[in-house]
Amino acid sequence: MKETKWTDAEKKAARRAFEAAFRKECDFISTKLKEMISNALEPADLWRIHDYLSDRREEIDGKYDYRYLVLIAVFGRLLREGWLSDADLKGLSEDKIERIKHIGSL
Amino acid sequence: MKETKWTDAEKKAARRAFEAAFRKECDFISTKLKEMISNALEPADLWRIHDYLSDRREEIDGKYDYRYLVLIAVFGRLLREGWLSDADLKGLSEDKIERIKHIGSL
Repeated sequence: MKETKWTDAEKKAARRAFEAAFRKECDFISTKLKEMISNALEPADLWRIHDYLSDRREEIDGKYDYRYLVLIAVFGRLLREGWLSDADLKGLSEDKIERIKHIGSL
Repeated sequence: MKETKWTDAEKKAARRAFEAAFRKECDFISTKLKEMISNALEPADLWRIHDYLSDRREEIDGKYDYRYLVLIAVFGRLLREGWLSDADLKGLSEDKIERIKHIGSL
């Protein structure tokens, strides 16, 4: 993989975008969790909630990888999944945005 | 371990007590979960909730063992932890109740 250069300003923008996506996804999980718990009637519902959280945790642990080597691909996935919008990419070079959008469209 | 005989009536009473304790503990977890989620502010709070549920699930999976061979000990523990009350033991022989209470007091 060709090394991508990140300027200090881009690193700052990238960190902001990364954290915004992370918070957005965690807020979504939190809302979903509230909904699940308010609908929980049976003991088995508790374990369904636990399974849901286990899956989300594993997914998030794997997905939010802030290494510059993989960040373009990470952002592409976050864009595709809707945790990032085009506006969140502001501050990155045109070239990077293009590559992120390309991955996001796959 | 000396084998304990259970009459059909006792088995029915035991099953009722077992299920009542299970439901009571699950209701407690459910209430605690609602409290935790309503106080959750940070993404890390989600993983604290997940940890809590993982611990409870493991504990409950190990604890609620409805084999007649171990049921006296299981009931003793449930009594000690407050998931069973003396009234829930109604229908069991005096001998069994005594042994359950003894284990419950350990």
